[in-house]
Amino acid sequence: MTTTDDDRRPKYQRIADSLREAIQSGEYGPGDRLPGENELMAAHGVARMTARQALGVLKDEGLAEARKGAGVFVRSFRPLRRRGIQRLAQEQWGSGRSIWSADIENRTLVVDQVAVSEEAAPDQIEQVLGLGDEDTVCVRRRRFVLDGKPVLLATSYLPTSVVAGSAITQEDTGPGGTYARLAELGYKPVHFREEIRSRMPTKAEADQLSISAGTPVILICRTAFADEGRPVEINEMTLDAASYVLEYDFDA
Amino acid sequence: MTTTDDDRRPKYQRIADSLREAIQSGEYGPGDRLPGENELMAAHGVARMTARQALGVLKDEGLAEARKGAGVFVRSFRPLRRRGIQRLAQEQWGSGRSIWSADIENRTLVVDQVAVSEEAAPDQIEQVLGLGDEDTVCVRRRRFVLDGKPVLLATSYLPTSVVAGSAITQEDTGPGGTYARLAELGYKPVHFREEIRSRMPTKAEADQLSISAGTPVILICRTAFADEGRPVEINEMTLDAASYVLEYDFDA
Repeated sequence: MTTTDDDRRPKYQRIADSLREAIQSGEYGPGDRLPGENELMAAHGVARMTARQALGVLKDEGLAEARKGAGVFVRSFRPLRRRGIQRLAQEQWGSGRSIWSADIENRTLVVDQVAVSEEAAPDQIEQVLGLGDEDTVCVRRRRFVLDGKPVLLATSYLPTSVVAGSAITQEDTGPGGTYARLAELGYKPVHFREEIRSRMPTKAEADQLSISAGTPVILICRTAFADEGRPVEINEMTLDAASYVLEYDFDA
Repeated sequence: MTTTDDDRRPKYQRIADSLREAIQSGEYGPGDRLPGENELMAAHGVARMTARQALGVLKDEGLAEARKGAGVFVRSFRPLRRRGIQRLAQEQWGSGRSIWSADIENRTLVVDQVAVSEEAAPDQIEQVLGLGDEDTVCVRRRRFVLDGKPVLLATSYLPTSVVAGSAITQEDTGPGGTYARLAELGYKPVHFREEIRSRMPTKAEADQLSISAGTPVILICRTAFADEGRPVEINEMTLDAASYVLEYDFDA
């Protein structure tokens, strides 16, 4: 539980590190009570806010959970498992099932915010979708919530020339969602590319996902391609990193 | 460039956020000079160390770069692109090529640290590899450096019963690396599972990867399976998130 002075990172991070290492080494096992704010203040000579932030990091990472009036306890990490390849298989959306339902096993992931609009395409979107300067895109912005906690922001861009007049321009896209509608329009997605990055959230992202200090976001940019390599959708997703494990299964 | 008082995150994060938003909105374009330490100190009423940390976040994220004596400038994000599926295709390692070389395009990724040992298997590794309590594993720990900057820590676990006496137990595994040797031993990897998470680095990880404040790590846990679903290797990777984009390409 000691920290070194040559570490330039904030003190709450270093305290969180030492607690995390104690959890990972087994010093504190699942269900064990962690040192509380008062104990951390005494042990590290820090203010209450610093002790609280340190415990907040572990909660954000899914390593610890507060139990009202009892303290903070080590929990088993039980994130959402997002299967990148299986979940986009045609048997999912081909039979009218939402592509999201594969994520959640027995837990309920719901859209609590949705906004659909027609907009000028941002430069990068315009380039990837191969649009002209005058072309617009249908933009679908959604927030997904699990057990009341926002976990995912998703913004989809689709060429207006492809989706105009379809349910894709409505809040409710109907059975099978956007990909089933694209198939009906003659633009069935046959290939996907997912690009993944991670960084600290912006203030706006932290607010929208209820992320507190010390938790990064995972960014997934998915491009869906129809026949002949035609890109038909770009979906920019921002995930609370403490809530997700991404999984990709594939053959050599 | 304003920050709100209800934000509980460290001040350097909030300053970095406002600069990042100014970059993303185009207020500062590629090649533009960002406000320096003195300007940030005056604008936000913070100490030099705070201003430096704020600029450090943007450098760590690959958004900005210091030019000696001239200041800090916006740069184009140019991370390593790691193609998860293509790079594990058999034509790569089957022809004696290292699986890592697909990552680097024209840049040189080198191993600057390697250690190989025989050890008792950690509990989770033992379970996934289906080992008994007495079985040991061959552990290969490597650090990969790009242009002098450490970007990746990789620790592979393989059953001693499979790899004993082979080049896998040596520092240099020979042409095609571990997977070519596994194939020669009759355990050709035919299926892979990659699991991805992100969190802030531990102190040890931050030191080994030269990560400073405000940059997360990406964790990839890859399991390689031989015929009949037999797991033959687990590779736990820790990536500097500012240095990587992961890419997965697959058909519907």
